Amino acid sequence: MSFQRIAIIGLGLLGGSIGLAVREYLPGARTTGYDSNPATRLRAAGRALVDQVHDTAADAVREADLVIFCVPPGAMGDAAREIAAALPAAALVSDVGSCKQAIARALGEALPNHAIIPAHPVAGTENSGPDAGFATLFHNRWCIVTPPEPGDLVLLSKLVAFWEALGANVEIMDAQHHDLVLAVTSHLPHLIAYTIVGTASDLEDVTQSEVIKYSAGGFRDFTRIAASDPTMWRDVFLANRDAVLEMLQRFTEDLTALQRAIRVGDGKQLFDHFTRTRAIRRSIIAEGQDDARPDFGRADHDTA
Amino acid sequence: MSFQRIAIIGLGLLGGSIGLAVREYLPGARTTGYDSNPATRLRAAGRALVDQVHDTAADAVREADLVIFCVPPGAMGDAAREIAAALPAAALVSDVGSCKQAIARALGEALPNHAIIPAHPVAGTENSGPDAGFATLFHNRWCIVTPPEPGDLVLLSKLVAFWEALGANVEIMDAQHHDLVLAVTSHLPHLIAYTIVGTASDLEDVTQSEVIKYSAGGFRDFTRIAASDPTMWRDVFLANRDAVLEMLQRFTEDLTALQRAIRVGDGKQLFDHFTRTRAIRRSIIAEGQDDARPDFGRADHDTA
Repeated sequence: MSFQRIAIIGLGLLGGSIGLAVREYLPGARTTGYDSNPATRLRAAGRALVDQVHDTAADAVREADLVIFCVPPGAMGDAAREIAAALPAAALVSDVGSCKQAIARALGEALPNHAIIPAHPVAGTENSGPDAGFATLFHNRWCIVTPPEPGDLVLLSKLVAFWEALGANVEIMDAQHHDLVLAVTSHLPHLIAYTIVGTASDLEDVTQSEVIKYSAGGFRDFTRIAASDPTMWRDVFLANRDAVLEMLQRFTEDLTALQRAIRVGDGKQLFDHFTRTRAIRRSIIAEGQDDARPDFGRADHDTA
Repeated sequence: MSFQRIAIIGLGLLGGSIGLAVREYLPGARTTGYDSNPATRLRAAGRALVDQVHDTAADAVREADLVIFCVPPGAMGDAAREIAAALPAAALVSDVGSCKQAIARALGEALPNHAIIPAHPVAGTENSGPDAGFATLFHNRWCIVTPPEPGDLVLLSKLVAFWEALGANVEIMDAQHHDLVLAVTSHLPHLIAYTIVGTASDLEDVTQSEVIKYSAGGFRDFTRIAASDPTMWRDVFLANRDAVLEMLQRFTEDLTALQRAIRVGDGKQLFDHFTRTRAIRRSIIAEGQDDARPDFGRADHDTA
């Protein structure tokens, strides 16, 4: 019933975590892997992220019944073309990318005769590369699956079971809606974090050493996600351009309104806005999507 | 040599943490406290945040040699007027507010005959109130002291020693420069976090429940600081208006540039920007101002 030979193309944080999670939670399945970077392949073999690391993508997928692309969105098309000739006809093609419409198009063009069901585990850390992965990355995280219409329901249910076995909660969603939701919950926050970290490091009156020194006042929270993989994020913004620009427009309008409240000294508007945003934090904690300990339980904060 | 009778006005996160820290690290000193909210006074007495909680601010400071105002910036002037008649002439007046020029003015007007040395421990969590404090809040955090010119060097060195005893590293700084540095490392990040959390909760096409569900993609990092105390933050933005608006202007310019890069598909500009911001994160970790564990070591992330 479940997938037996899983090929992972791209052995960074996501690909490596999938490999480790399959070994931990689906011990019957065999994993193969490939990465275009030879140093990453070497390190992946060293950490045994998959059962076997191959020197070509084609070799990695030759016996696969599931292939998962874990490369940046802009590299999906080329990676899929590399395996087109070697991939068994019955194999399911999936991925873990953060924008689903563009990736579905790229994979579909490269592999027109294969079943393709894109997916996106909403999980990650600021670290990347073959040393970053761990088996529990997907625990209690959502995995959004965006099947095409009409789709193969047997393959869909196998893919859902696969992600559930790795600890994720699965949600089925339309690809277009996914791209809108992620634009606000992930892409816009990253863009803003990248911006403010850049702004802070370009000041003349405040030195970079002061910014770093006093970052505990709030700035450091932004630096975490602004340390994420640059290649992946470049590709995400280019691939999900329209939804990101739409959300950015709304954000800018709201920021302008608060800016005006500060300029004219409208304390009531500021207070009302700041009170409203507290409720969201409480819901995120209540649903287990974040850590309730103050400051995420950062070192030295013993509230006991 | 050191302060013996320390009065704390305002018994929330900061005031409560100072009280607990004095008991832990300066066991010879006696602490008194007052809060304008009777429920907070009751809870403060219950947690023994200070040795004695008083029902008026005047009673709390009657024997003090150091009084520390831990109230929102906009409440400093009124709080200082309340104690003016009762405060011993030799007592030093200080505070913990996040903007120093406006607070120095407010305290100076209310207490024209007392020595005043404002201070700002750059430490905190998203929680507030009398239950939020803990003795180790200031460990390995910076405390910026902004003495007036000319100042009393004996009192200054006693205040520095006080904060060092509580675990902080002390930096002496001009009040105007402090306000500029904090505008970028703390005030602007909070304003942006408050904005994006508001934007996300006002969408029509994406429900609030979806925003919460998929917040692990980056959004949740912003919600932490957007859960901070609304009264305090309203006051901070009003009190440090000019520096905040200046930083906001720069941020908006930088955001517009990245927005344009996305619109025209300039992947190189995006990649270069995103690469540059990684270095700052590394420096913050290296200087011990944040936690290097992925995702701050949030639950379930076992990389061992």
